Amino acid sequence: MSTTSTVISPADLLQHWQGHRNLTRRVIEAFPEDKLFNYSIGGMRPFSQLAIEMLGMAVPSLNGVITKTWEKFEDIEITKKENQPTTKQALLEAWDKTTEEINALWPKIDISRFQDVEVAFGLWEGPVYWLIFYNIDNEIHHRGQGYVYLRSLGIEPPPFWER
Amino acid sequence: MSTTSTVISPADLLQHWQGHRNLTRRVIEAFPEDKLFNYSIGGMRPFSQLAIEMLGMAVPSLNGVITKTWEKFEDIEITKKENQPTTKQALLEAWDKTTEEINALWPKIDISRFQDVEVAFGLWEGPVYWLIFYNIDNEIHHRGQGYVYLRSLGIEPPPFWER
Repeated sequence: MSTTSTVISPADLLQHWQGHRNLTRRVIEAFPEDKLFNYSIGGMRPFSQLAIEMLGMAVPSLNGVITKTWEKFEDIEITKKENQPTTKQALLEAWDKTTEEINALWPKIDISRFQDVEVAFGLWEGPVYWLIFYNIDNEIHHRGQGYVYLRSLGIEPPPFWER
Repeated sequence: MSTTSTVISPADLLQHWQGHRNLTRRVIEAFPEDKLFNYSIGGMRPFSQLAIEMLGMAVPSLNGVITKTWEKFEDIEITKKENQPTTKQALLEAWDKTTEEINALWPKIDISRFQDVEVAFGLWEGPVYWLIFYNIDNEIHHRGQGYVYLRSLGIEPPPFWER
C-alpha cells in the first residue's frame, strides 16, 4: 500500500474530532448562562449535562485505549455531581482542558491499535476506531439536540459546517 | 504497514454509515405519519425534509466520487418538490432504495480515492473521506434534532447505540 491508501489518517481523525469539538464549544457559548443549565425540551437533559457527558467520555476513552486499563464510568471525576461545572465559564474551561489533553494523548495511540477490540469502561466491546467514532457521533447527536434548544429559544446556532 | 495498520477500512466505514442509516430509518418509522411531514420546533424543517436532504446527498456524493462528475445540487431529482415522498411509506421506500444503491456503489470507490480532493457538487472542496464523513455527520446532526421532535411529542426514540 502507498501511504495515501488509507480512508483517514490518525492525524486527520484528530483534526476531524477537534473540529467538531470546536463547533460544540461555540454551541455552549451560544446558550444564555441560565438556559445552558436549566433549559430542555421533552424531559431531556439541559445542554450543560450533554456537554459534561462528552467530557466524561473523551479523555477516559483515550486513557483506556492507551493504557488498556478502564476506569469504571461512575469513577470518572466529572461524572460526579460535586465535580461538575456550574457556570458557562467553568464549563468552557473544562472543555479547553479536555481539548489540550486530547491533543497530548492522541500521538500515544499507535495506528495498530485502531483495529484492536477493547471492552470500553468494562461494558462496551468493540474496535478502538468504533469507540473513537462513538465519542464523535455521540457529540454530534447531542449537539444537534442543542441546536433545537437554541432555535426554540430564538437563538441562531453556529453553522454546522464551520469547524 | 501491515494490513491492520489503518484507522478504519472502507468496508467498516460502509458498515458504520449503514448502521447509522438503519437507525435513522427507525427514527422515520417512529414518527406519526402527520408529524413526520408537519411537525417541527423553532422554525426548523420537519423530519421528512431532513431525511430527504440526507437522501439528496448520499448517492449523488458517491456518484461524484466515482465518476468525478458532479451534478448541481438543484438538479438532483429528490431535491425537486414534485419528486419528494409525501407519505411515510414512500419515504421508507426511497430510504431502502438508497441503502441498496450505496451498497452497490461503495465497492467502486478505490481506497486511493479517499485522500483525493474533490469539489463536491461544484461547491465544497475537500478530501473524499471528508465528504463521506460530512454525509454521516450531517445525518447524525439532523437525526439528533428528530430525537427532540419525538421526545417533545412524548414518543421514545430508538436507542442511539443500536444500529
